[in-house]
Amino acid sequence: MGPSSLFKRIVNKVLPSSLEQARLMRQAKRVTEAWRELLSNRGEVSGAAVAREAILAFRGLSAEAKPLFFTQLTTTLVPDEALVSKACQQYLSAPSAAHLSALQSACESPLQKLFRRLNQAPDGIETLMSLRKNVILGLKQNPEWQLIDEVLDRLFNLWFNRGFLSLQRIDWHTPAFVLEKLIEYEAVHEISGWRDLRRRLQSDRRCFGFFHPALPDEPLIFIEVALTKGISAAIGPLLDLEAPVGLAEKADTAVFYSITNCQPGLKGVSFGNLLIKQVAQKLGEEFPRIKTFTTLSPIPGFTQWLTHITPELEKLPDVKDSLQAIATLSQPDWHLKFSNDKKLKESVMALCAYYLTKATQQNLPADSVARFHLGNGARVERLNWLADVSPRGLKNCAGMMVNYVYHLNEIEQNHEAYVKGSELACTRVLRQMAQTCPLARQGSKDKKN
Amino acid sequence: MGPSSLFKRIVNKVLPSSLEQARLMRQAKRVTEAWRELLSNRGEVSGAAVAREAILAFRGLSAEAKPLFFTQLTTTLVPDEALVSKACQQYLSAPSAAHLSALQSACESPLQKLFRRLNQAPDGIETLMSLRKNVILGLKQNPEWQLIDEVLDRLFNLWFNRGFLSLQRIDWHTPAFVLEKLIEYEAVHEISGWRDLRRRLQSDRRCFGFFHPALPDEPLIFIEVALTKGISAAIGPLLDLEAPVGLAEKADTAVFYSITNCQPGLKGVSFGNLLIKQVAQKLGEEFPRIKTFTTLSPIPGFTQWLTHITPELEKLPDVKDSLQAIATLSQPDWHLKFSNDKKLKESVMALCAYYLTKATQQNLPADSVARFHLGNGARVERLNWLADVSPRGLKNCAGMMVNYVYHLNEIEQNHEAYVKGSELACTRVLRQMAQTCPLARQGSKDKKN
Amino acid sequence: MGPSSLFKRIVNKVLPSSLEQARLMRQAKRVTEAWRELLSNRGEVSGAAVAREAILAFRGLSAEAKPLFFTQLTTTLVPDEALVSKACQQYLSAPSAAHLSALQSACESPLQKLFRRLNQAPDGIETLMSLRKNVILGLKQNPEWQLIDEVLDRLFNLWFNRGFLSLQRIDWHTPAFVLEKLIEYEAVHEISGWRDLRRRLQSDRRCFGFFHPALPDEPLIFIEVALTKGISAAIGPLLDLEAPVGLAEKADTAVFYSITNCQPGLKGVSFGNLLIKQVAQKLGEEFPRIKTFTTLSPIPGFTQWLTHITPELEKLPDVKDSLQAIATLSQPDWHLKFSNDKKLKESVMALCAYYLTKATQQNLPADSVARFHLGNGARVERLNWLADVSPRGLKNCAGMMVNYVYHLNEIEQNHEAYVKGSELACTRVLRQMAQTCPLARQGSKDKKN
Amino acid sequence: MGPSSLFKRIVNKVLPSSLEQARLMRQAKRVTEAWRELLSNRGEVSGAAVAREAILAFRGLSAEAKPLFFTQLTTTLVPDEALVSKACQQYLSAPSAAHLSALQSACESPLQKLFRRLNQAPDGIETLMSLRKNVILGLKQNPEWQLIDEVLDRLFNLWFNRGFLSLQRIDWHTPAFVLEKLIEYEAVHEISGWRDLRRRLQSDRRCFGFFHPALPDEPLIFIEVALTKGISAAIGPLLDLEAPVGLAEKADTAVFYSITNCQPGLKGVSFGNLLIKQVAQKLGEEFPRIKTFTTLSPIPGFTQWLTHITPELEKLPDVKDSLQAIATLSQPDWHLKFSNDKKLKESVMALCAYYLTKATQQNLPADSVARFHLGNGARVERLNWLADVSPRGLKNCAGMMVNYVYHLNEIEQNHEAYVKGSELACTRVLRQMAQTCPLARQGSKDKKN
Repeated sequence: MGPSSLFKRIVNKVLPSSLEQARLMRQAKRVTEAWRELLSNRGEVSGAAVAREAILAFRGLSAEAKPLFFTQLTTTLVPDEALVSKACQQYLSAPSAAHLSALQSACESPLQKLFRRLNQAPDGIETLMSLRKNVILGLKQNPEWQLIDEVLDRLFNLWFNRGFLSLQRIDWHTPAFVLEKLIEYEAVHEISGWRDLRRRLQSDRRCFGFFHPALPDEPLIFIEVALTKGISAAIGPLLDLEAPVGLAEKADTAVFYSITNCQPGLKGVSFGNLLIKQVAQKLGEEFPRIKTFTTLSPIPGFTQWLTHITPELEKLPDVKDSLQAIATLSQPDWHLKFSNDKKLKESVMALCAYYLTKATQQNLPADSVARFHLGNGARVERLNWLADVSPRGLKNCAGMMVNYVYHLNEIEQNHEAYVKGSELACTRVLRQMAQTCPLARQGSKDKKN
Repeated sequence: MGPSSLFKRIVNKVLPSSLEQARLMRQAKRVTEAWRELLSNRGEVSGAAVAREAILAFRGLSAEAKPLFFTQLTTTLVPDEALVSKACQQYLSAPSAAHLSALQSACESPLQKLFRRLNQAPDGIETLMSLRKNVILGLKQNPEWQLIDEVLDRLFNLWFNRGFLSLQRIDWHTPAFVLEKLIEYEAVHEISGWRDLRRRLQSDRRCFGFFHPALPDEPLIFIEVALTKGISAAIGPLLDLEAPVGLAEKADTAVFYSITNCQPGLKGVSFGNLLIKQVAQKLGEEFPRIKTFTTLSPIPGFTQWLTHITPELEKLPDVKDSLQAIATLSQPDWHLKFSNDKKLKESVMALCAYYLTKATQQNLPADSVARFHLGNGARVERLNWLADVSPRGLKNCAGMMVNYVYHLNEIEQNHEAYVKGSELACTRVLRQMAQTCPLARQGSKDKKN
Repeated sequence: MGPSSLFKRIVNKVLPSSLEQARLMRQAKRVTEAWRELLSNRGEVSGAAVAREAILAFRGLSAEAKPLFFTQLTTTLVPDEALVSKACQQYLSAPSAAHLSALQSACESPLQKLFRRLNQAPDGIETLMSLRKNVILGLKQNPEWQLIDEVLDRLFNLWFNRGFLSLQRIDWHTPAFVLEKLIEYEAVHEISGWRDLRRRLQSDRRCFGFFHPALPDEPLIFIEVALTKGISAAIGPLLDLEAPVGLAEKADTAVFYSITNCQPGLKGVSFGNLLIKQVAQKLGEEFPRIKTFTTLSPIPGFTQWLTHITPELEKLPDVKDSLQAIATLSQPDWHLKFSNDKKLKESVMALCAYYLTKATQQNLPADSVARFHLGNGARVERLNWLADVSPRGLKNCAGMMVNYVYHLNEIEQNHEAYVKGSELACTRVLRQMAQTCPLARQGSKDKKN
Repeated sequence: MGPSSLFKRIVNKVLPSSLEQARLMRQAKRVTEAWRELLSNRGEVSGAAVAREAILAFRGLSAEAKPLFFTQLTTTLVPDEALVSKACQQYLSAPSAAHLSALQSACESPLQKLFRRLNQAPDGIETLMSLRKNVILGLKQNPEWQLIDEVLDRLFNLWFNRGFLSLQRIDWHTPAFVLEKLIEYEAVHEISGWRDLRRRLQSDRRCFGFFHPALPDEPLIFIEVALTKGISAAIGPLLDLEAPVGLAEKADTAVFYSITNCQPGLKGVSFGNLLIKQVAQKLGEEFPRIKTFTTLSPIPGFTQWLTHITPELEKLPDVKDSLQAIATLSQPDWHLKFSNDKKLKESVMALCAYYLTKATQQNLPADSVARFHLGNGARVERLNWLADVSPRGLKNCAGMMVNYVYHLNEIEQNHEAYVKGSELACTRVLRQMAQTCPLARQGSKDKKN
């Protein structure tokens, strides 16, 4: 997106002249004033009008002045140090309920009240989401913005609490306004246009999203599902515009092949876990023959991990096949030339099985997608060879994809195991495959990753 | 309401035997366990199911065991004292942003997370509202429950933030389910049944309410309006079932004659100020001839105040008329016998004008209804003699009612004056009337009240 | 209803003076002109505006002038006699498709086009329904109005074709505007007010109606259903406001205890047959345990028929019991004194069984309610003694009610038998009961009735 | 559309072998039987089920058998000749109301009842619309099908009576299902895809359609409007995907630039007149600054008419310029070479002005679009030179377009003049332009055309 990347560039570059700097400073100050007005008596009695003014002022802010405005917010609208200190001392002297309550009040950021009042205007929540998106983009360069980020993180987790979301089916009867956003947002398998979108909404497919009542036109997250016979082993047939439309009533499997978080401003509010489970339940009710709920997922960190562990691998005995396989994967078009090379396939799949089920990073699965699904209580079901031969699929996942299966009655124990760091849930086949990986012979988990 | 008063009685009375007490204790503990489960790993991964179980457990709780449950919540689900203390010390040693953030996290009540997760179940929010209603009823006897009350107060202020409410017209096309609740909730001028309700929804009347998307059948607050020619001086004609239906298009005034907060569990979330202003704006757009937006309000604290200030009054000179008037008001049926007694009327109205515009309590207007409307930026427009001769009207307000007028372009300055404690907004006539009150001759405001 | 009966009286009485008569005549003519305008060029190009004018003119018509207006319509807006005659002659000379088509056009009433154009105004269809209601009321006195009646009968049968109706559940979430009409319209068992209505809409009851999209607030017909265990044998428990609410999920029977046609202006458009069947299907889907769909119906013509057949009965042998029973029924409070008189019960029920299953009038069942349900394919299931001891129930039905059962898989053959005049569908018990009636011994059907 | 043209070919070609013919005949008979069943006792009591069967049977009919089925309908389901004849004779002997009524009944086609009953099934009306579409396509070859066509024409005129239609705005919030149909149906200026459609629905454009409640996803007719400053003189800028979006609030003119009837099966039901007027009224209310409601219309018959009148023109004096102009128009790319040729422009525009305002065919304007708008009460406002230089525009209209303006307060008198055959409504400029055409000098209207 243009504006975001513009903003990104601005965040990073040194600002031009001091004259210009002063001008921007004044601009930012005017907006800060408009926002502080929300905390005044006028904000108390005419909140909606003041909130509208504040939003207009913010929209008029140039991209260069925004960072200054954010920084001003974090310097002028913070809890009063003296008050917080005093509340701390009181609590330390007597940790009573009353002192705790006073302490909570004292350290609550004035930004919270400000943002709450801003939400009186019709576009309040959109403005705050857009603001946080910008804040997150510049957080590294401006660590002080964390004060804003944290307040919004808390607010959004409360405002977008699951109890307020509605699960809605998205299909060809959905307003074009919303459909258009699917095309824009889809992050996993790009939608090439209206024809592509239409194929994904036909009777052998389902699409569901979470919506918030204050943002009826904005999907927060959406998931795309194919109703199939058997567990899909490759993404190509699912995305094929010309694929014949199957009979949903005959399907025995629901394949979640794409899930997209739409709102960068809502980072930290987790929707995916609940969405998958609610959709699985809904589909199970509509199609009693569907017994398997599975994903068809990328393995985004695999090839990077291969590079990372190669030195370690080289130190182990009997790793010739593995090292040769890794070398092969770096050849262009290897998937065309060696598609039937059984040894290659075995070696790579063993490494990948190990990666998915054994490799960890800070005690969690190394792969980000694995982290998400295993953390939700799914299990690793099957590795699929040459399942995604798109450039991205080859580059990141060595052309493989994985199915994570959600068994409703084993979700809780899988999650429990996941949290406790016990063995991850996977099929016996995959466990055995992982054990044929030379790294497994080390007799211990890969510690560093 | 039956259940509430039952609960009230229970809260106050000593519990029977120790055997019974133990049984209740066990009952309460089981529910506490069910609620704590929400904070466990299971609550993390299967939140909605755990929340449903928690709600069912709570509903099964006997009225006698509820107080025990509340108390358990406040003893087991509080911020960890050691952690809070440590965070306090860190902050005191170095009041950095990071330490502030750590302090905020440390002192956040685990109840907040628990309540948020409870809201994943379909009835979560109703359960929490009902819980808080009970907590408030027993707060005096159980001051420790404040820990629950405060968390819910914060949560509700965020969840019922104005940006999420929808203003809806309530009329004869509204589902009976909602209309029935108006009859149940109306707190100012009782609705005697469906016929009465119907009269209040006819074409010369309007009724509006705020609704929250998660509670589509529950008005949070509602306001009743009469569209009239001129400012109403008495409530009787507005409530008369047989009154002919006026022509709304010919009206020049909107009289807000009743406003009711429906949800005791939402105490502390203020809806009224915004509702009045949004309704005024809406009516102004629909009926451009309507230029005056006024209330017809009771003066609930007037006669009590009279009793209270009589000793002080007796010390002043030239108070014979006033004292005689006060005495007259205590005679039965005085309004029939002395309805034309000009001196009585003058004395009482002078006292009342003084009460409304000068009498204060903790630097705010002494009358609760005056506090509300003046705090919203309205002004005192007119006192109406024998405007409400119902038993309650006579007892509390000496039969008078007052019009507070909302002038959209003077609201902010009125509110400003109100906050600063400057002279309250009222008409010249009323100010002069107040000055004829003997108390005004004291040369200073009534300090004690 | 007041206005209708006023109109009725007017239709019947001689109009006052010739002066007055002339005034009314002029009034009626003005409206006739306004309506004829719809057939003019202006009506062609500005139909909606002209239709509005026509409706306003009609509304301004006094009750006394309406009959004159109706008569004018029938004299001025009829097919041209010369054209019809010519078309007849052409057809007779050569009965070709073209001549048939010309004949159809020639004899189509100009009123049809007029009414179609009137329907361009927002209230067009209500106006026409109200007009027809009036026309029907005066039809006997003004046989020429049949020309209007027939055109509207045809139009309404097309406009209210089943494909355009929507079946809607009516419950406590329905707008009060519609619920109020149930109270007003209910024709079988009067609804005494909102409390009564509410009981009829609780979870062990169902109410459904047909609505037309152009009249979203007007039920055309509605049916009330009780979900019970076993077939109800008396109406009292179903109408009891204090009856405990049953568990719908445990019900095995749906009792249709009231069905009301709401719109007298739609006479001749049959909704009931389809409504019963669609509701039965819907309930069967929602409650798979419900296997029996039955009515609990009055027998409105029974006692009148008894009076009618008594002379004939007296001529037969062995009729002492029957005659004595008939005499008993005319005693006041017989149902209290003789409620356990077995002989009385047997005699009366035998007569009634005979009446329901054998007595005919113009080859159709003598009882109007029996005609309706048997014509729909139901069968007579059970006679219930002392099932309706209300004054009306005693007077018309000798306190009895009957269950007609709809077995979905025997409806077609029952209807077939009904149409062919074969034996009516009923249980063996009832058939035997009927045979014990002295009239059955005659060896032939009751011919005269 | 494929199926239609397939059907068309079939209608026209001789059917293959007599064996095949017999097979098709049997197929058609089975469907005829299924449809006749609707008129039986079973159809009476189980109409909806029988209608569903009938529709399924019809759908199973091969394209080759359809014509046979239609023909069977017209031979087996016609009014009984004997009955009609008898009714004719009775009427002729005594033309009473009763005999008229009997005659109407006798000559009503049984098809009407059949189609009414078919409409009990969910897809009834779609089936009938599709059937009529086919009937119309084959009407020329099968004149007997007129019996079906006439019945459906009458039914549809009643069912799609204006009182039942709803005017709906179509915009980017409309379901994709409906939007897709605009792309498919648009008949005037093809929509090239979703991007094109989107531009036509932006804030300086409006699109409205009529919908029937039984067909909520099917626009019956739709109109596209541009909100502009001044009357558009060319179609190109309106269709330009890259045209900047104008400010609707600043517009003073609404340009109806495309109107499309969507349902060939509803031929003869006129929607356009009412749609234009309702949209004009709606826009006038929303945008009080818009005072001019105009079309930008093609002149589809102009060049054909030129060819047609050339011989006649050649007989007149002083026609050199005209003839040369006509010759020029047949040169390829004349609009590029002679775009500034003033003489050419004058001659062609004079001819066109004459064509639009004077040329008649059976006493009506020769041009079909002119007939429609002038018949609706519009007036010819302005001829636009080189307004549509698309191949079709050049071929049919010599690149010109015309604005018809709807002045709400002159519509009725314009229509009156139109109907009476008086001078057509147009501006003085156009009238003078027409008089400079050599044909005007003839002193009389063009009689033959």
